[in-house]
Amino acid sequence: MKVLWIFAHPEAGSLNGSLRDEGVRALREQGHEVRQSDLYAMGWKAVVDRTDVAFDDGDHGRMVVGDAQEAAYRAGTLSPDIRAEQEKLEWADTVVLHFPLWWFGPPAILKGWFDRVLVQGFAQVVTDAEGRTRRYGDGGLAGKRALVVTSVGARESSFGPRGVHGDLNGVLFPVHHGVFWYTGMRALPPFAVYGANRRFTERDFKEYADALRARLEGLESDMPLPFRYEAGGDYDDDLVLRPGVAPGRTGIDAHYEENVPSVPR
Amino acid sequence: MKVLWIFAHPEAGSLNGSLRDEGVRALREQGHEVRQSDLYAMGWKAVVDRTDVAFDDGDHGRMVVGDAQEAAYRAGTLSPDIRAEQEKLEWADTVVLHFPLWWFGPPAILKGWFDRVLVQGFAQVVTDAEGRTRRYGDGGLAGKRALVVTSVGARESSFGPRGVHGDLNGVLFPVHHGVFWYTGMRALPPFAVYGANRRFTERDFKEYADALRARLEGLESDMPLPFRYEAGGDYDDDLVLRPGVAPGRTGIDAHYEENVPSVPR
Repeated sequence: MKVLWIFAHPEAGSLNGSLRDEGVRALREQGHEVRQSDLYAMGWKAVVDRTDVAFDDGDHGRMVVGDAQEAAYRAGTLSPDIRAEQEKLEWADTVVLHFPLWWFGPPAILKGWFDRVLVQGFAQVVTDAEGRTRRYGDGGLAGKRALVVTSVGARESSFGPRGVHGDLNGVLFPVHHGVFWYTGMRALPPFAVYGANRRFTERDFKEYADALRARLEGLESDMPLPFRYEAGGDYDDDLVLRPGVAPGRTGIDAHYEENVPSVPR
Repeated sequence: MKVLWIFAHPEAGSLNGSLRDEGVRALREQGHEVRQSDLYAMGWKAVVDRTDVAFDDGDHGRMVVGDAQEAAYRAGTLSPDIRAEQEKLEWADTVVLHFPLWWFGPPAILKGWFDRVLVQGFAQVVTDAEGRTRRYGDGGLAGKRALVVTSVGARESSFGPRGVHGDLNGVLFPVHHGVFWYTGMRALPPFAVYGANRRFTERDFKEYADALRARLEGLESDMPLPFRYEAGGDYDDDLVLRPGVAPGRTGIDAHYEENVPSVPR
């Protein structure tokens, strides 16, 4: 495998930093190639603005963000930091997004990686020969696999199927379905460290490091979350589930082909 | 009302910029006070790092993010831009978060506002006299109301109860439940502009501007999303829904007291 490990924590010496080191080492020992985007270490710019797209505000008026990104992508004028990340994504067959869960989502620096790198024409609003938009199971990154590795301060039960924070797959739906699957990447069940705010003993750490190693061994073979393909016939021309599909079900869970799987450790 | 309008779009001349102007004008005409945080215009720093908390890395080793934020909050040493936002939040009784939906969430600059401003001790991990954590319906921002105003390129049906992108309330669960309700703010049903990528005619714009004005008239009286209170008796000591509550239901929708309401325009 060719694995791109994207890391979004400010402290290399943190629990997450140590887990990242373990994970990268494990993959290399298993014979895989690994490249990294350590966003804090790179000083990654989080915020979309005109400098991303070499926007000439001489007399063009306002920038329409998506269009300006696509035009710059096609012209090869996206800023070099963005192009470097796109090149890494093209190289990879597997992507690991590793971040502490802050406010039930990725830290801003990683959200900004989505906003700046996954531009129209590259990862989204990619059209096929018939002019159809390729999305949800198809798209610019189709065929790759992707895994969230995250940490939360809370205990595991509180992110379970009936836990107060919402089940972890539900909380991560915008990433799993909205980023990974939208661009064509198969989302693997997330790997989560719970109680990350407590003082970790060496034994606590080893337990999680071993569990992470085991999960990484399944990167190629684990069943991805069973989201529906947009072009698979389940959705009508208004992009709504046909009446016979998941009859009576509404909400985000209706977009799984089967029941929502539980989250393995 | 005292309304804090937080705006996260890079272009003042955009559709969203015009809607923001309309919204602020409407509120003032209705006799309310309005303050703004125009994050791009302010050059808001999106990324949490040591400079936020005046972290002394002389011999302290690594920064534990949440703890360092809380310590700096209590010591009054959070960076001035963060303290200014906290002061605005304390002033406000109503918060409007206005952003284009990018990758099914807020732009990085706004995510970074959550990450940097809503620190432990101020908005979260606030404890009462008995040492209980005040959260979900209670907390540092209890009693305020909050509204998402957003725009999406897609058509309305695709964000409906069975639309391919996931229903809008499900996609926004991390903001509504994880940010607003977690910190004590009542989440109002979101206001969304659909098809925002098309060229808007003056008539299109007027339709949305009028709809926004009408929604803003309901800021004080509209029914918020009926999330469950953490301290309301529905959750057990493991923070899991008691068996008799929403029996058999799992996933994020189980945390609404009633069925998930549809999203009004």
